[in-house]
Amino acid sequence: MTLSVYLSGEIHTDWRDEIVAGCKAAGLDVTVSAPVTDHAASDDCGVAIMGAEPNKFWHDNKGAKLNAIRTRKGIQDADIVVVRFGDKYKQWNAAFDAGLASAWGKSLIVMHGPDHQHALKEVDAAALAVVERPEQVVQILTYVERGTLPG
Amino acid sequence: MTLSVYLSGEIHTDWRDEIVAGCKAAGLDVTVSAPVTDHAASDDCGVAIMGAEPNKFWHDNKGAKLNAIRTRKGIQDADIVVVRFGDKYKQWNAAFDAGLASAWGKSLIVMHGPDHQHALKEVDAAALAVVERPEQVVQILTYVERGTLPG
Amino acid sequence: MTLSVYLSGEIHTDWRDEIVAGCKAAGLDVTVSAPVTDHAASDDCGVAIMGAEPNKFWHDNKGAKLNAIRTRKGIQDADIVVVRFGDKYKQWNAAFDAGLASAWGKSLIVMHGPDHQHALKEVDAAALAVVERPEQVVQILTYVERGTLPG
Amino acid sequence: MTLSVYLSGEIHTDWRDEIVAGCKAAGLDVTVSAPVTDHAASDDCGVAIMGAEPNKFWHDNKGAKLNAIRTRKGIQDADIVVVRFGDKYKQWNAAFDAGLASAWGKSLIVMHGPDHQHALKEVDAAALAVVERPEQVVQILTYVERGTLPG
Amino acid sequence: MTLSVYLSGEIHTDWRDEIVAGCKAAGLDVTVSAPVTDHAASDDCGVAIMGAEPNKFWHDNKGAKLNAIRTRKGIQDADIVVVRFGDKYKQWNAAFDAGLASAWGKSLIVMHGPDHQHALKEVDAAALAVVERPEQVVQILTYVERGTLPG
Amino acid sequence: MTLSVYLSGEIHTDWRDEIVAGCKAAGLDVTVSAPVTDHAASDDCGVAIMGAEPNKFWHDNKGAKLNAIRTRKGIQDADIVVVRFGDKYKQWNAAFDAGLASAWGKSLIVMHGPDHQHALKEVDAAALAVVERPEQVVQILTYVERGTLPG
Amino acid sequence: MTLSVYLSGEIHTDWRDEIVAGCKAAGLDVTVSAPVTDHAASDDCGVAIMGAEPNKFWHDNKGAKLNAIRTRKGIQDADIVVVRFGDKYKQWNAAFDAGLASAWGKSLIVMHGPDHQHALKEVDAAALAVVERPEQVVQILTYVERGTLPG
Amino acid sequence: MTLSVYLSGEIHTDWRDEIVAGCKAAGLDVTVSAPVTDHAASDDCGVAIMGAEPNKFWHDNKGAKLNAIRTRKGIQDADIVVVRFGDKYKQWNAAFDAGLASAWGKSLIVMHGPDHQHALKEVDAAALAVVERPEQVVQILTYVERGTLPG
Repeated sequence: MTLSVYLSGEIHTDWRDEIVAGCKAAGLDVTVSAPVTDHAASDDCGVAIMGAEPNKFWHDNKGAKLNAIRTRKGIQDADIVVVRFGDKYKQWNAAFDAGLASAWGKSLIVMHGPDHQHALKEVDAAALAVVERPEQVVQILTYVERGTLPG
Repeated sequence: MTLSVYLSGEIHTDWRDEIVAGCKAAGLDVTVSAPVTDHAASDDCGVAIMGAEPNKFWHDNKGAKLNAIRTRKGIQDADIVVVRFGDKYKQWNAAFDAGLASAWGKSLIVMHGPDHQHALKEVDAAALAVVERPEQVVQILTYVERGTLPG
Repeated sequence: MTLSVYLSGEIHTDWRDEIVAGCKAAGLDVTVSAPVTDHAASDDCGVAIMGAEPNKFWHDNKGAKLNAIRTRKGIQDADIVVVRFGDKYKQWNAAFDAGLASAWGKSLIVMHGPDHQHALKEVDAAALAVVERPEQVVQILTYVERGTLPG
Repeated sequence: MTLSVYLSGEIHTDWRDEIVAGCKAAGLDVTVSAPVTDHAASDDCGVAIMGAEPNKFWHDNKGAKLNAIRTRKGIQDADIVVVRFGDKYKQWNAAFDAGLASAWGKSLIVMHGPDHQHALKEVDAAALAVVERPEQVVQILTYVERGTLPG
Repeated sequence: MTLSVYLSGEIHTDWRDEIVAGCKAAGLDVTVSAPVTDHAASDDCGVAIMGAEPNKFWHDNKGAKLNAIRTRKGIQDADIVVVRFGDKYKQWNAAFDAGLASAWGKSLIVMHGPDHQHALKEVDAAALAVVERPEQVVQILTYVERGTLPG
Repeated sequence: MTLSVYLSGEIHTDWRDEIVAGCKAAGLDVTVSAPVTDHAASDDCGVAIMGAEPNKFWHDNKGAKLNAIRTRKGIQDADIVVVRFGDKYKQWNAAFDAGLASAWGKSLIVMHGPDHQHALKEVDAAALAVVERPEQVVQILTYVERGTLPG
Repeated sequence: MTLSVYLSGEIHTDWRDEIVAGCKAAGLDVTVSAPVTDHAASDDCGVAIMGAEPNKFWHDNKGAKLNAIRTRKGIQDADIVVVRFGDKYKQWNAAFDAGLASAWGKSLIVMHGPDHQHALKEVDAAALAVVERPEQVVQILTYVERGTLPG
Repeated sequence: MTLSVYLSGEIHTDWRDEIVAGCKAAGLDVTVSAPVTDHAASDDCGVAIMGAEPNKFWHDNKGAKLNAIRTRKGIQDADIVVVRFGDKYKQWNAAFDAGLASAWGKSLIVMHGPDHQHALKEVDAAALAVVERPEQVVQILTYVERGTLPG
């Protein structure tokens, strides 16, 4: 059983690397995909390829649509979508991805700290697991693939 | 042509009333639905009906799932989903609803002020219209139903 | 908002009547459907219409398929599927209906007493509400339709 | 033709091993998946990874949702879902899985002894084959793949 | 509960009238639709409206496609599709309709005499009921709608 | 049987009026919808409601998305989509609508003169009828609803 | 581009072998599947594995359902479904398979002699190609894969 | 991440070769498919394999349906559909393909020069990217796969 996992959301910490490293260390049969996490490239990709826009709305619109090619493929190909909400920013794209994942019938895992618990209650309610730390995601993937628990 | 419209998102201003009043004034053939906008009831519905929970996570979980019965029906029955992002709070449920609406093929209209433009670029990029004020939604519904423009 | 509700499961108590009466007393805009609850007719419908079968398996098979015409329409037309597990019998058809409802994206409400909690954990985990008594279902339907809570 | 088979249901006998061994002996091109069959791990996986719950309902809820990540992938990836009902316990999760499999258009094979015939009539009526013993499943898989019959 | 029924297949006896009359006599809440049963009109509709074709293949092709507008709507709108196979002709369109109905998840009732039993085994195997006479269809519809059995 | 018909394509002749008048004269039970056919309103709707755009691409983009709210609802609600290609202009939106209608399983009727036959061969090949004049559409709708042919 | 082809219908001539040999000779990248073509095994598979039935209807029913495991997988996995109607027998299962293939959006190729043209007009009308001989199927597969024509 | 790309539309310039060469030069993990671009073969494939037609409509109809076997597989298997509109001809098949791609949820990239901007506004509005030159498609594919931008 190969698990296909998409890691959506917060891009300012190295949580994706931790999960990838953890899966590798555990020898799991997991395929991981993610959005472009280079913030500058992600913001400017549209105008860099398709031409400058004086209006910030269209600058962002071009970029967001280009990023959507990647994110939608990632989510649609995934068995499991992990969405992490960090401490800062609005992160509405993360919640939007969670909505897509839920509507498309993906297994949703949400990761966030206790501060965001109340604000994320609707997203958490659509999830099959709510965790706080990357190693818990690795433990879940290990359990799903092998049926073994930590410790 | 009866348009079925679901009004998702911010619940602290009377924007829904403005849209409903505007549609009524214009004599549009529109059916409007919305989440429960009584904040206290919305937060406590789960435990009020199904029993108290000492842990806030499960208190919220019970409530969020009960609210999901209404919000999912509203979104699934809609032709058009309007999602408004206000000035305050994280409003992740609004972005989550936008993700559901997008994945289910609904026509998405996003409403927000210019301050949130960059943070909402992925949600806006999935929308067929991005507006700032309730009367613009009424104008859009008028145009979609009758083909007439304001002024 | 008209809610369409299908009441699946246990047929030896009058819980369906209680829900229907409660909805009527509350003046809710609810459409209720259910399987045939006449146990004898439900068991024998197949052979009564299509001819006797000496083998009990085919006797039951003919009947179960005929009942499926009604139960599948009921579930597919529903917004909300309530599945009640009573004290007796295996009630595998109830759990089967819950699986259908879940896979077809219906809002699932499960009703059962505390004795069955552990055995029903997978079904409960797929539900948006788990209750014990019919009046709780009426309270949920009231909340979903009107946003008002009991008491 | 590679057949993908999911083996759902009873976890207290070695019927899955018999089927796997039979397929191997016959040299069939079959991929087999199954739920986690370690009863203790299956019950406690949720709290082991995501933290203890004083309330048994939530203890079970966390675990059931985690197991659902695996079981739903197994069923959705399968061509054929075999559901076995044993002699003991309620086994509602098995019937629930059969409902999922049926709604998702999988070929359903049900395995049970004659004692459960009447109680399983609705599940049997949704199946393409009803058998009693593991070797019959191997014979079916052999026939489906090669067109050859036993003996 | 309004049942929507499509009556496909044999057009040389008055079996549709018998079912309609039976439903009316029983006071059932049933909506019945059917293909065009005027054989000549059905054969020539394409060329009558869209111009003559010297080649019989295209003459028939134009007509068959026009008829498909009606038959596909009838089948897609139906809860129950009844397909009758008569004594004469190949009636491949009836079996084709049964395939459409099965793939679209409709409840399939097949009607035919014992002579055709072996030749129709694949179609019968996809059905929820196999009957011989129109009154049995009326009895089934009565049972599905009301839960009452004949006699 | 109420037929729901969407009339897509060319907006510079009164072919829609002819069809509507013909259906009315024939007393057909038909619901007709169409895009906004006021060319100026259709071009400028986006900027009129959501603000001017100096760049023609975004001016058109805003308008095209607003029109899509109406056209997608019209096509998705239709049983039959009629697409007319006139003598002038590129009319790519008409062919695009035909693609949507085909992929969504609608019965497609294409209307065009003989000059466009070769260029429209792919679109015609996806249609259930290809006609030249509005009265043929009325004849088809009459036949589909009543089974009667002209003259 | 690997084409997946399912060969349904007539089992009394070696047309499948001709197509397979033709594809091999042409070096096409094609995967071919088919129903069990051993007539005796196909008729008796159900009772051979799951026990005898005194009633021919159930004897056939058990077998037809077992065969359906293979045929449905074959059709669902296919890009192209070829259905051949021979000179003899009713071959309703072939027309039923064509209905399944059409409803599931498969590219349908129908093969039959001129004698059956009128009786198969509805099936032909749903096809993307109608041919008479196996080598035409090979030519079509060659064209679809490579764009080259015979001769 | 392997991206599957279908290149639809204009067949008179070598834009497909440029994209394929660009992807190869960049070392991208991309699978490219396309319609048959041999204009004569594409026009005559139907009659060459299935027999001559005196009427040009049916000549074209046979060919267009045969080509549809390839184009529909190409579009359905793709993650990304690129549709190019050239300077000449009506190219309605390109717009039709864009409609199919949009309805099937594919990421749509439209390529055309500024002259066609207004006429393609509805198609562009359904796209995630609108470009003018083949190298921009290569840049997009590079960005989607690797997150790197040109220059």
